[in-house]
Amino acid sequence: MKHYVAVDWGTTNFRAYLLTEQHRVVSKLSENKGLLSVKNRDFSTVLLQSIRQWKDMVDIASLPIYMAGMIGSRKGWYEVPYLPSSIELSDIKENLYEFSLDWGAKAFIVPGLQGKNCFSLNDVMRGEETQLVGLRKLIPDSSISAIFPGTHSKHMSLVEEHITDFYTVMTGELFALLNQYSILTKDIPEYYDDQNGFLLGVEKGYCNPLNSVLFSARTLLLDGSISSDSVRSYLSGLLIGNELALLRHVDNIFIVGGESLSHKYDVALSFLGKQAHTVNGEACFLAGMKAFLGDK
Amino acid sequence: MKHYVAVDWGTTNFRAYLLTEQHRVVSKLSENKGLLSVKNRDFSTVLLQSIRQWKDMVDIASLPIYMAGMIGSRKGWYEVPYLPSSIELSDIKENLYEFSLDWGAKAFIVPGLQGKNCFSLNDVMRGEETQLVGLRKLIPDSSISAIFPGTHSKHMSLVEEHITDFYTVMTGELFALLNQYSILTKDIPEYYDDQNGFLLGVEKGYCNPLNSVLFSARTLLLDGSISSDSVRSYLSGLLIGNELALLRHVDNIFIVGGESLSHKYDVALSFLGKQAHTVNGEACFLAGMKAFLGDK
Repeated sequence: MKHYVAVDWGTTNFRAYLLTEQHRVVSKLSENKGLLSVKNRDFSTVLLQSIRQWKDMVDIASLPIYMAGMIGSRKGWYEVPYLPSSIELSDIKENLYEFSLDWGAKAFIVPGLQGKNCFSLNDVMRGEETQLVGLRKLIPDSSISAIFPGTHSKHMSLVEEHITDFYTVMTGELFALLNQYSILTKDIPEYYDDQNGFLLGVEKGYCNPLNSVLFSARTLLLDGSISSDSVRSYLSGLLIGNELALLRHVDNIFIVGGESLSHKYDVALSFLGKQAHTVNGEACFLAGMKAFLGDK
Repeated sequence: MKHYVAVDWGTTNFRAYLLTEQHRVVSKLSENKGLLSVKNRDFSTVLLQSIRQWKDMVDIASLPIYMAGMIGSRKGWYEVPYLPSSIELSDIKENLYEFSLDWGAKAFIVPGLQGKNCFSLNDVMRGEETQLVGLRKLIPDSSISAIFPGTHSKHMSLVEEHITDFYTVMTGELFALLNQYSILTKDIPEYYDDQNGFLLGVEKGYCNPLNSVLFSARTLLLDGSISSDSVRSYLSGLLIGNELALLRHVDNIFIVGGESLSHKYDVALSFLGKQAHTVNGEACFLAGMKAFLGDK
């Protein structure tokens, strides 16, 4: 039986899946081998070390490798040019970057997408295009609005095979910076998941410009509206609520990601009276890779 | 001749002015003796060390000290309760916190103000109330809109002796965090003041929600719209432009602060077609203290 490998290779994470040609997952690796950890750009050795674990099951020498994510960026293995985001999703598979591995097998890198967003600003994605293609396959609705929450959240709108808009929101990174370094969390206890604080933050963040409400994580503590245990949850709510204000006119939203973060967005969207549907990010990634392989 | 001392004592800065009873500055000290640097809350010793430099000019033992800023906060010398921001500015002087120094002289701390802002959120100031009182004395207009730019910018609206609104915008702190720690400035040259990059940022930040445009500091570099030398100026422009969007409906704005930062806001406001007037922050502080002393 033929097999292939699908790799989600990002800046900090590396996930590799061994699949049958019927797209059944046989084995899965998740390792701290993100781009930042790879010395001297020796991606070849790092990849081989990982897939070698499967050498008793498959013939490594002929095992094709399909990769998506920042591995195709300037800091990655090969810088694969972005495709225009106006491309039909079903055409991405014609544009995989193909090369031969040192040990003879074929490798492919999925190109990212680039285009002007609704704010008339250039925007980019690498990795999410694969999940988006998977989401398109998994969800029958002709129009889809989706959030891919994370360090850099992506908001995407799809009609059939076309991306009608996508843009990046830095919610995750902003939370990390404010949570770690800002005056708002100075002398505040470690993160504790406080639902009430989170929802109050969602409400205030949704209704107001971001920079006008951030300081309230401090002033609501001063006037006793929230407790010190709630500050970090409130701050998280402020940022997520404010992000969701960008989808003010959308009622039906898919959330594509890992369980914990998707749950936060789900809770926030429900609180705001929206229809939210969580879709497993890994399932979308694998469905996307399946679509890229097509009849190969 | 009688003298008094006015102290602007904040978290990181300490500025002390020796003045005649006619409010003429005789001498000025600016030292790195902010609250954070004071060991064991020994504010008394730190203050005495500073003013002792004036012992040949004045009688330290009877020299009254008027202080404003975070020195009146929980982390300061005494926690002076906030006054409601609905108070008439001219009534603040009746509410100075008075105590006796170890060496017998009188000391006073100006209370900060607290109240609900236009976003229905509690907000606070400590120190700016003194500058605001000074601004009120210096500017004859019955209505005033002012920005006090800084780590935590304050926006204030005044009608006669009443604050009609004030709120805090964390522009300075956000810039510091993003400039120092974020992915946007990774591998980017040190800050270089690029006017074109700054103004492009002002334009984009003014027209769009903050979190939807921050990532453009990276993507406009990727598509060549800005150079790596411009990234930090563009980011600064994004944040300041976005802050100024909160004053979208105000045409005539006073900027109260130090020269360098005030200049940035002045340039941005002029670019946006607003009438901007810079007013020296130190002059406002001293005029405020003069008003508090009144006929004393």
